[in-house]
Amino acid sequence: MHDEYPLSLRDICITDPFWKREMDLVRGQVIPYQWKALNDRVPDAAPSWWMHNMRAAARAVRARKAGSYFPPQAQIGFRNGPPEGSAPSPDAFYGFVFQDSDGYKWIEAAAYQLMTCHDEELMRRAREAVDAVCAAQEEDGYLDTYYTLTGREKAFSNLKDHHELYCFGHLTEAAVAWHQATGRTDLLDAARRFGDCIARRFGPGKQRGCPGHELAEMALFRLYEETGEKCWLDLACFFLDVRGTEPSTFALEENAHRREQNLPELPVSAERYVYHQAHMPVRDLTEAAGHAVRQMYLCCGMADAARLTGDKAMEEACRRLWRSAVGEKMYVTGGVGATHEGEAFSRPYDLPSDTAYSETCAAVGLAFFARRMLRLERDSRYADAMERALYNTVLAGMALDGKSFFYVNPLQVDPEACRSDARLRHVKEQRQKWFGCACCPPNLARLVSSLPAYIAGQDGNTLYIHLYVGSLISAELNGSPLRLRLDADLARDGNVMLTVESGSAGGRLAFRVPEWAGEPAVLSPFPFTMEKGYLVFDGIWHAGDTVRIDFPMPVRIISASPRVRETAGQVCFARGPLVYCAEERDNGGDLHLLRVDPGLSGKAEVLYRSVNGLEVPCIQFPGSRITQRPGMPLYAPWKPAVSTRVSVVLVPYFVWGNRGQGEMRVWLYAAPEAGGV
Amino acid sequence: MHDEYPLSLRDICITDPFWKREMDLVRGQVIPYQWKALNDRVPDAAPSWWMHNMRAAARAVRARKAGSYFPPQAQIGFRNGPPEGSAPSPDAFYGFVFQDSDGYKWIEAAAYQLMTCHDEELMRRAREAVDAVCAAQEEDGYLDTYYTLTGREKAFSNLKDHHELYCFGHLTEAAVAWHQATGRTDLLDAARRFGDCIARRFGPGKQRGCPGHELAEMALFRLYEETGEKCWLDLACFFLDVRGTEPSTFALEENAHRREQNLPELPVSAERYVYHQAHMPVRDLTEAAGHAVRQMYLCCGMADAARLTGDKAMEEACRRLWRSAVGEKMYVTGGVGATHEGEAFSRPYDLPSDTAYSETCAAVGLAFFARRMLRLERDSRYADAMERALYNTVLAGMALDGKSFFYVNPLQVDPEACRSDARLRHVKEQRQKWFGCACCPPNLARLVSSLPAYIAGQDGNTLYIHLYVGSLISAELNGSPLRLRLDADLARDGNVMLTVESGSAGGRLAFRVPEWAGEPAVLSPFPFTMEKGYLVFDGIWHAGDTVRIDFPMPVRIISASPRVRETAGQVCFARGPLVYCAEERDNGGDLHLLRVDPGLSGKAEVLYRSVNGLEVPCIQFPGSRITQRPGMPLYAPWKPAVSTRVSVVLVPYFVWGNRGQGEMRVWLYAAPEAGGV
Repeated sequence: MHDEYPLSLRDICITDPFWKREMDLVRGQVIPYQWKALNDRVPDAAPSWWMHNMRAAARAVRARKAGSYFPPQAQIGFRNGPPEGSAPSPDAFYGFVFQDSDGYKWIEAAAYQLMTCHDEELMRRAREAVDAVCAAQEEDGYLDTYYTLTGREKAFSNLKDHHELYCFGHLTEAAVAWHQATGRTDLLDAARRFGDCIARRFGPGKQRGCPGHELAEMALFRLYEETGEKCWLDLACFFLDVRGTEPSTFALEENAHRREQNLPELPVSAERYVYHQAHMPVRDLTEAAGHAVRQMYLCCGMADAARLTGDKAMEEACRRLWRSAVGEKMYVTGGVGATHEGEAFSRPYDLPSDTAYSETCAAVGLAFFARRMLRLERDSRYADAMERALYNTVLAGMALDGKSFFYVNPLQVDPEACRSDARLRHVKEQRQKWFGCACCPPNLARLVSSLPAYIAGQDGNTLYIHLYVGSLISAELNGSPLRLRLDADLARDGNVMLTVESGSAGGRLAFRVPEWAGEPAVLSPFPFTMEKGYLVFDGIWHAGDTVRIDFPMPVRIISASPRVRETAGQVCFARGPLVYCAEERDNGGDLHLLRVDPGLSGKAEVLYRSVNGLEVPCIQFPGSRITQRPGMPLYAPWKPAVSTRVSVVLVPYFVWGNRGQGEMRVWLYAAPEAGGV
Repeated sequence: MHDEYPLSLRDICITDPFWKREMDLVRGQVIPYQWKALNDRVPDAAPSWWMHNMRAAARAVRARKAGSYFPPQAQIGFRNGPPEGSAPSPDAFYGFVFQDSDGYKWIEAAAYQLMTCHDEELMRRAREAVDAVCAAQEEDGYLDTYYTLTGREKAFSNLKDHHELYCFGHLTEAAVAWHQATGRTDLLDAARRFGDCIARRFGPGKQRGCPGHELAEMALFRLYEETGEKCWLDLACFFLDVRGTEPSTFALEENAHRREQNLPELPVSAERYVYHQAHMPVRDLTEAAGHAVRQMYLCCGMADAARLTGDKAMEEACRRLWRSAVGEKMYVTGGVGATHEGEAFSRPYDLPSDTAYSETCAAVGLAFFARRMLRLERDSRYADAMERALYNTVLAGMALDGKSFFYVNPLQVDPEACRSDARLRHVKEQRQKWFGCACCPPNLARLVSSLPAYIAGQDGNTLYIHLYVGSLISAELNGSPLRLRLDADLARDGNVMLTVESGSAGGRLAFRVPEWAGEPAVLSPFPFTMEKGYLVFDGIWHAGDTVRIDFPMPVRIISASPRVRETAGQVCFARGPLVYCAEERDNGGDLHLLRVDPGLSGKAEVLYRSVNGLEVPCIQFPGSRITQRPGMPLYAPWKPAVSTRVSVVLVPYFVWGNRGQGEMRVWLYAAPEAGGV
């Protein structure tokens, strides 16, 4: 199998000033903050209940092991805490049914950090978390605090809505990362025991079923790759194969519940489960649809399956879903999932700016999917989308101080509208400290903490550089070790240099040509060819050898396809991987009145400004602003608009909302009227 | 009191070909169709349950009168019919809690038609309806089938949500119209008896309370004007005075219900009742807010109060609300209420085209309000908005064949989006046969049927012509009768001629100069002055005298205030009172790709076309269309768009959607790019 392996986190040490700051922020600020959140110690923030639920479940497990009676607590709904005014019961489950996953993501992020840094305090907390999880596991391996506390007999009866397999997936991802980071098998064993418990019930010849929220698939493939135990690959393939086939297992579950309530049964056809991507067999899927995070996670599992089993029909389905998600349904910021109705993909080319959903987790999922497509095929367009998501929507999900987060990432914000308009109730005008449904912050933490795995990978004797993130790289070509230094800082410019620091080896070094780069200037004695968007240098490499590539990084003005209705007549700005936006702070309010002159090209300048302590490249250009005359009627005969010249300042999208509240806008109107008074 | 009285429906006979067709359509098609609907005899349409509920209530009333036990039926929710598969119980209430009002509106519309036409069949049906209503009245005068059937002891306990006073209002409006049309006092007595029943409970020194859905106010003023009984004026003023004061009567109602359910009580402050316009005393209101129909109906009651009582603070509040509703929150089509969330007014200048609510009833309400403001002050701007609503949104609410209706009137429609997008679930891409909540069709029928009252009015010895609807007018100036002929057909041109057909009298004739007319050409021997947008001719009028005014009616290109974000860079077309739109049928799909050339002025032509059998003036102009190249990426460097010259055809907004499904768009993009390839 023609495969690419990401370099281990231990083999890449990030030196890039931009990303090092982000990773350090996650380790120094986000992870400790989230630890407090998991323990319900953040004042004025929605409680997580994670540690509470683990401890309560552990007590239940201990009690039952000791033969005592531990009564199941009444099911209290998806997101409830105790009734107002009463103290929480130590034995009750609180929060969403998928609450366990938040802590698993935290453990996973912590494990990645521990792979590259020594941090006693973090290790201590991570062990506390792992111990809490292990103590909550039932004797038969079952591990889900919701059902352990509310009634185990109902376990696995509602895979569609109740996220047990999703929690299992996050447990497993955390367990593999924790095993890789520490060599400890405690959490890995817990995951395998829960996996055994699941596999005793589901599989060929046993009960049909599949996860309502996908994730277990890719987690099981990962468990297979970590342990070499084929049973996990088989279970993952089983879940993929059952999905979308008839009779729909989700319909069967629904009917079982309807029978209990004496309601008439529904047809068992699959077609109504678009939200869950269970409306047709996965190999037949052609369009990214339904809940965006689920769709992205399903794509990850499918891409893993294609890679690990050589399933060509699965690979083709992955390509079709990629074309749909990235080619027709992706925001210019790398966000996906345009509608809040079902947190879902909308129809092709429907990409509204102000009502956008563009969940942080969906952009994280797009990066996961892109990384997996790269493993299937070294084609730069996968890395292009991965880079777009990472530098824009993923980073925008977190404040520059790491203390607040966006769940939804709009491309246009009017704070007054967000506060007063029920149609925008999902859009927050400022980042929040924590969420009752806190999927995004720890997801972001685990992605940023594992960034090294996204930078480079190896396919046979070719080392691929996918992302230009300055780093020290240890690799082996044809059996000989090489130590390389990648000098890059895309947040400033597109000049990239790879230097062989030590070692000597023959092989190929492949450098991605980003979609935003025009003609790169290459300075290297080694011959090169172009392969699917990568410059491939073949040679025998010795210490001191260098490859220097200067990717031009002009300010780009971008328009969307005419098929996109929402951005007709509008343009946006980008430079290198960064997409830009206008903020009220720099340009005043009513950003819809700014106009971009068609003759602007070349007049936009880059200047560095400090945004809340971080120096970032900003864009300044001469534009115009439509004048509002006092007393203007609501409707009037069309006349050339009166406008004044203004200097427009744009900041990178990922830093928006870090300087107080105000309007923000990515897409700006192009001006027929520019050059007015 | 300086007042204006609309001419009686008997004194104006419409001859205008455009409006005569609409009125005949309402009488010949809509009213009989709605009669079937009220009797649940329209196949494949949501049942109305109106006659069913009236008959069931009459049985309950008879049974109780005879001392028999008639058990209250279980309350079955707001819009339920019988459980699927079971036959309706003859004794149960079905439908919305305000279902009674649909038939009252029908009776009112029928009464207006009977004032101008002899129609045996319609008279027979109307008497059947009136008899059904009278039979459903309880011994103490109470008349609301919902509570009569579900438990009278709860009557008046939930004025906020349960629409009893709203139904009373419609009963009263129907009763006055029926009395005027037939001289019969049966329904008027029923309304007065129900009014007495209400007045025994509510009023100064009695229980505080006010309608959750306004309407009773203006209906009571009308009852007062019809009967001369001051008690109705007092009750209307009481409802207005209580509204928005503290402790909020709505909060008190809610708390009573919460106590029954052992829930903690809410604060009794008024501020949270914006939806009901009960968040502050009515004289303090400054912004049109909350449910749009309710706001318009409240404005009507306030304007009536100002006129009938001389309350200056009330009059000023009316003017402020007018400025807000019409000057900041009205669509170019005369629709109001931009958001489906609460069917409500949005913030100023928020006028989205595709998600618009713009309920037909709200435009009807705007016409009501405008007519009442005209009675307070003869200023042409009130008639301008009235005309805008009538010729555009009100008429768009009904298909050209009178068989289907819009509840929501968007300014931009993509049928595929409407079918698939939950964010547009309120927008229908084609008119519906009937609605479970069928407020709009009969509201439209009663407005169109009473159109004569909107055309002209008299203030002392001045006869005002507000609308140019061709008609024969009987008036009296200074005690001498005049018979006038108004020749006009605004659907074709702006040439207006008034001829004195018979009689002789001294006095003033005032002609409104519409906002869309430039400099009118006046041909008349009589001297004239200009007063608040009216050309006022003073003279002694004899048979054969004429006033001819030619209002220029060029194609106008209109832009919205820069404050309106949604229409930045876009323009729309109008001619005379008609606003235009592009439809897919004439221009192909992807209407967002059409471009209007800034140099277009004067090149647009008017041509007459048949739309589903109705000849209407259409607009044709040379425009361009952005070309979509195959394989265009989702995002690309900004380049001048490639476009082709196309001939764009626009149809009047009110006829859209009468030729099958397709895209529709009122606002078209202005082109920087026009003149491309």
